[in-house]
Amino acid sequence: MRDSSTPRTAGRNKMTSQNSTSVHSALIAEQLAQTRDFLSEQLLCSDAQLAEFIDYIKNRQGKMLRASVLLLSGKLLGEVKPLHIKIAAVVEIIHAATLLHDDVIDNSSARRFQATANSIWGANLAVLLGDYLLSRAFSVTALQQRNDINKILSETAEIICRGEMLQNVSRGDFNIGIDAYLNIIEKKTAVFFANCALLGAIISDADDNSRQSLYDFGLNLGMAFQITDDLTDVIGTETNTGKTAGRDFENKIPTMPILKSIDFTKSKIADYRQKAEASLDRFGQNPAVDALKGLAEAVTQLPL
Amino acid sequence: MRDSSTPRTAGRNKMTSQNSTSVHSALIAEQLAQTRDFLSEQLLCSDAQLAEFIDYIKNRQGKMLRASVLLLSGKLLGEVKPLHIKIAAVVEIIHAATLLHDDVIDNSSARRFQATANSIWGANLAVLLGDYLLSRAFSVTALQQRNDINKILSETAEIICRGEMLQNVSRGDFNIGIDAYLNIIEKKTAVFFANCALLGAIISDADDNSRQSLYDFGLNLGMAFQITDDLTDVIGTETNTGKTAGRDFENKIPTMPILKSIDFTKSKIADYRQKAEASLDRFGQNPAVDALKGLAEAVTQLPL
Repeated sequence: MRDSSTPRTAGRNKMTSQNSTSVHSALIAEQLAQTRDFLSEQLLCSDAQLAEFIDYIKNRQGKMLRASVLLLSGKLLGEVKPLHIKIAAVVEIIHAATLLHDDVIDNSSARRFQATANSIWGANLAVLLGDYLLSRAFSVTALQQRNDINKILSETAEIICRGEMLQNVSRGDFNIGIDAYLNIIEKKTAVFFANCALLGAIISDADDNSRQSLYDFGLNLGMAFQITDDLTDVIGTETNTGKTAGRDFENKIPTMPILKSIDFTKSKIADYRQKAEASLDRFGQNPAVDALKGLAEAVTQLPL
Repeated sequence: MRDSSTPRTAGRNKMTSQNSTSVHSALIAEQLAQTRDFLSEQLLCSDAQLAEFIDYIKNRQGKMLRASVLLLSGKLLGEVKPLHIKIAAVVEIIHAATLLHDDVIDNSSARRFQATANSIWGANLAVLLGDYLLSRAFSVTALQQRNDINKILSETAEIICRGEMLQNVSRGDFNIGIDAYLNIIEKKTAVFFANCALLGAIISDADDNSRQSLYDFGLNLGMAFQITDDLTDVIGTETNTGKTAGRDFENKIPTMPILKSIDFTKSKIADYRQKAEASLDRFGQNPAVDALKGLAEAVTQLPL
């Protein structure tokens, strides 16, 4: 969730212009464009007064990491089907909803160099817009008539909320320990990535072993991503100019870099990334494997 | 949604002790108890740190009007099935989620004489708890493997959000006109009641005419209920002592009583109630029809 609030954008934005990211997005450039188109279509709303809010969401699509994981999992297992595109759009709508509420909770005024919804229209509207997007995501899912997919997506949303609530409860407690921290980020971030990969496999009618491997890839990718994000929040302030102090520390959120040393944290990022990549071994040589590994490299980069 | 924030509790609470309400709840007392039990079971959560929040929700179940509409529709058409109970619990979970966010948005400190979640734990936790409940509602629904029901519930949540957003956008504008007001309350309240009645009919495998009649009943019941609630917000302050001024006016929400005179508003409540009851004519003499009419009477009562 808290993957790109302003103080960390330096590291994140730089990332998107690097080759490692291009590797994963190039292979599915067409499908990502289709996902964006489908997403925009699904957000059309008959209430004219709400158009500006919807436009804001449509114009604010980010890196689409979760959609990419889903689409690349499909690509890895064969063809990217229309249903991959649709569900990729759904996961991005769910993600957008969580970001809106996240910014309200952190009282953030900017994300990716843009003003947040709560800073433009107030917290009330941002809460409701998030609720709308979450409900819309489930409506789009319902139309696909796939109970298996619907179940995974609703459980994912539920687990994200539990992770966020646990994080909220742990505010100010720097004695929670690494295991509690790992439990929180698994729930609030990693399970979402895991289920995106799993959904890609399910839509491709993959066998159980492939499903499990991709789920494991996503889970470890998500862990690596969130720890990277949390570390960026700390060290980004030391290397970039004009940035305010780390927001996690301000908000008294006990993240790994605060709980442990930076070196230990870097080794953990490497561990999870390695585990993520190892989950792909069974697929052998494949451009999608390279792309997924490129994605793993991209999301674990720290500001120089 | 905003059906029972503190300043209006006098009227609402009084209502629940009157015969008119007993008529509807007595006929389905057993099923309402089963719904409460199922709801409590569904909210069990493995995170010990979250238990107090979940307990708060479980102990704060209100009048269960929406569940009652669904269960009574089922009763009217034959037997109340286990799926009626389950989906009745789901609609109450969705309703609880909207109340949590509503109290955050209105910055309400009490509801039904109890402290609101935002006043106890802060707005952040209340937003997340609402998100969790909404997601949980969709998870419980997904397990029923009924795409038709799932679609109606997700669309309902979506329309409620649109209604709330429209209301938010209209704050401070007392020139929106009655039609715009009616559009808002239809979306934020009446469609939910309509779909509860429809779901009751669907689960009973009712024919299209019965479905339409019950949908129409719910829609008009919901309109009457919300206008009653909005009028209570205004005149409740004149008849009860020790209450703060109407919250809608404070929040600059243009409701019908503010837009038009109180007499006109009362006639509209009667109109909708009459339409609601007329939708039941085709079912003839039936205890469930009496109960539904009792419910219509109950929800349109104003403070004396």
